[in-house]
Amino acid sequence: MLPMTQHVTKPKVVVIGAGFAGLNAAKALAHAPVDITVVDRKNHHTFQPLLYQVALAVLSPAEIASPVRTVLRHAANTEVLLGEVKGFDLQKRLVLVDDPYTGPPDRAVSARAGVLSLPYDYLIVAAGATHAYFGHPEWEQFAPGLKTLEDATEIRRRILMAFETAERELIAKRTPPPLNFVVVGAGPTGVELAGAISDIAGRHLTKEFRSIDPRQSRIILLEGGPRVLPTYPADLSASAERQLKEMGVEVRTNAMVTNIEQGVVSVGKEKIPASVILWGAGVSASPLGRMLGVPLDKAGRVIVQPDLTVPAHPEVFVTGDLASATRHNGQPVPGVAPAAIQMGKFAARQINRAVEGKPREKFEYLDKGSLATIGRSRAVADFGKLHISGYFAWLAWLFIHLLFLVGFRNRLFVLSEWAWAYLTYNHSARLITDPAEKDHVETPKAKAG
Amino acid sequence: MLPMTQHVTKPKVVVIGAGFAGLNAAKALAHAPVDITVVDRKNHHTFQPLLYQVALAVLSPAEIASPVRTVLRHAANTEVLLGEVKGFDLQKRLVLVDDPYTGPPDRAVSARAGVLSLPYDYLIVAAGATHAYFGHPEWEQFAPGLKTLEDATEIRRRILMAFETAERELIAKRTPPPLNFVVVGAGPTGVELAGAISDIAGRHLTKEFRSIDPRQSRIILLEGGPRVLPTYPADLSASAERQLKEMGVEVRTNAMVTNIEQGVVSVGKEKIPASVILWGAGVSASPLGRMLGVPLDKAGRVIVQPDLTVPAHPEVFVTGDLASATRHNGQPVPGVAPAAIQMGKFAARQINRAVEGKPREKFEYLDKGSLATIGRSRAVADFGKLHISGYFAWLAWLFIHLLFLVGFRNRLFVLSEWAWAYLTYNHSARLITDPAEKDHVETPKAKAG
Repeated sequence: MLPMTQHVTKPKVVVIGAGFAGLNAAKALAHAPVDITVVDRKNHHTFQPLLYQVALAVLSPAEIASPVRTVLRHAANTEVLLGEVKGFDLQKRLVLVDDPYTGPPDRAVSARAGVLSLPYDYLIVAAGATHAYFGHPEWEQFAPGLKTLEDATEIRRRILMAFETAERELIAKRTPPPLNFVVVGAGPTGVELAGAISDIAGRHLTKEFRSIDPRQSRIILLEGGPRVLPTYPADLSASAERQLKEMGVEVRTNAMVTNIEQGVVSVGKEKIPASVILWGAGVSASPLGRMLGVPLDKAGRVIVQPDLTVPAHPEVFVTGDLASATRHNGQPVPGVAPAAIQMGKFAARQINRAVEGKPREKFEYLDKGSLATIGRSRAVADFGKLHISGYFAWLAWLFIHLLFLVGFRNRLFVLSEWAWAYLTYNHSARLITDPAEKDHVETPKAKAG
Repeated sequence: MLPMTQHVTKPKVVVIGAGFAGLNAAKALAHAPVDITVVDRKNHHTFQPLLYQVALAVLSPAEIASPVRTVLRHAANTEVLLGEVKGFDLQKRLVLVDDPYTGPPDRAVSARAGVLSLPYDYLIVAAGATHAYFGHPEWEQFAPGLKTLEDATEIRRRILMAFETAERELIAKRTPPPLNFVVVGAGPTGVELAGAISDIAGRHLTKEFRSIDPRQSRIILLEGGPRVLPTYPADLSASAERQLKEMGVEVRTNAMVTNIEQGVVSVGKEKIPASVILWGAGVSASPLGRMLGVPLDKAGRVIVQPDLTVPAHPEVFVTGDLASATRHNGQPVPGVAPAAIQMGKFAARQINRAVEGKPREKFEYLDKGSLATIGRSRAVADFGKLHISGYFAWLAWLFIHLLFLVGFRNRLFVLSEWAWAYLTYNHSARLITDPAEKDHVETPKAKAG
């Protein structure tokens, strides 16, 4: 497994990223005559479609994440490396991997391994995407997005803290404080978040507060374009908007956000006060795309060949959200989990074929439909000619996402957790934790002085 | 419920702290003719006896914690306030409560409620204890202790990162790096941690790493005194030491730690290199004891009257680890969960009796025995004349801790999680998360420059 034995002749495959694309590529090569190294800067795969449930304290982090080592433990030809990719040498076929970021210096671990140079015969870059703030990185601290477990627990903390602070404020000042949740961007993530906040405020929290009424919180969903879920058919957008309004969400389309600061979202000259601001508006490709030194599209994604490789390097595949691929009808392959899974498996198959001396194929995305959930029991589903809304769309969403959790041992746990949450509204996941806290050690001497 | 209605004549009870003492006091008053406010700076009750299982990635935070509001949701006379106590005015019968710490400024929530003055007729102070570093607060960053969920996830991160870093180092440098875990203090927490590290290294992780052999890690347990578990009978200390050694833990008694720095623990002139250092040595009472302005013992605990009140204030009870109480035989009441629970219930009963015009009672601790676990299937148990070691002690520990989880809805989940972990060694809780991470937003412009 180690790159130290010269007499091993099996091709080496390096996979960057353990998201849907990378993990599926690695799994598809688990029995191939190759040696695989999977590199990620997190030790876990995150099931991103359910991240918003962690953000809303319905599920716990461990229920939607799984250590990469655990997922790949039975793949004897695969090693996992926790690290941050710092660069590529496509000519020498090397990936440079540094220690991952491990927090501020005072919480760092003792040992540092330093930069490591990984040789490869085949490279699969599946580094994904991250938030984009349209050239306003300073907005991020006021309006976190939802891509990682850390994002989800931070959003959970802010939402729960908003209710706690309002309760304290009402007791202190005797007038009910405003409790506004502003979600920027009405794509699938924004719609999910707005709907889920309505759920938690309207049902789960009402019995737990004695002073405030969580149901009186305002949830404002701002969308710069003319309709919610802009990538969906117009009738489903209209249905989603209707369902959101039934849940008490104020939907404002054509509302372009011009500024975000602490507790205030500006739409033109209007300033909207906000207890919590969440970002569901923009996504951009991982900066690893640029490190490859190949042509990128406007969103920073790598423009790939029909076989998902980069120009002049048939041994370098780019897959998942980092790839800018085109369908046979000229439409772009969407940045969704099924596309990433298909790309990962495709790249693995091409490597398998190359090892067997077979020619390359062309990637074609198989669109099985799209679903967007809008809180408990509501969703929209686009299966081509079949459009579904409401409860049955939500059942379809639930069914598909449970099926999708294949490979996660905690599927049953998630199901039982959901069942429990539905029956009882009793949420143990509703924890406010703050590992950045520094003052939890009290030294008698220091405090006494 | 609010302190705003003058015509309410029910006595007001303020409970500080939602640990075992405070929560049991509040629950015992749930049907009494009083209005209760429970104040805590965390939104959750933590089941501390199982914290080490979170630190070792066997259980997840939500499995051993429950939001205080959820625990008390059916107590109609009880409100919960998330906040930090800043002081007391025992003459005017007021508690000053400030906003809780919510992280560094850039992650703060928008609204601040400010300082709030809570009147009371009866006060129960149950603020617990925290780590103590014997006058060396600078050791804490290198050797975290285990009191909160945040501590547990931080320790989990450090332990898992140590293995990850060793793996990377071995691949980079081709020589196996040292992998030393040093636990300072062989009280129950230190013994639990050392045993549990042996478990995770010896069994759970071996199949997941391709280069390092986690079983080759060294686990060193340092104890300043002459034996491990110093509060237990000598035969059980000897048994615990034997069991630890069977698990591969290097037990060093009479080893007084003289310095701790990044990656190094000093015992006199000897410097022990350490990948991870954990602190299980010292505990001191919450600084809230000092704020009361009453006599304290050397550990900073409040010296209470036989009815657990402070001198001259029969309406102010101090319970749990913050109380320095004495048994009828002159021995101190130990700082363990059963004592905290008994004290909390006792204080509640005295308030109930006062409301009914009955005289005070004297607190007497009922010692039901002590158990200390030493990893999977090993423990010692002290039931007075009956001393048990090994597997049956561990079964007793398991049974009692499951019973003890009463009031937690996730008892069944914990049990099923344990069962699963035992059957499969498959641990989804093994997540390295770092919410202090700042660099996860990549802005194309900034990074391109």
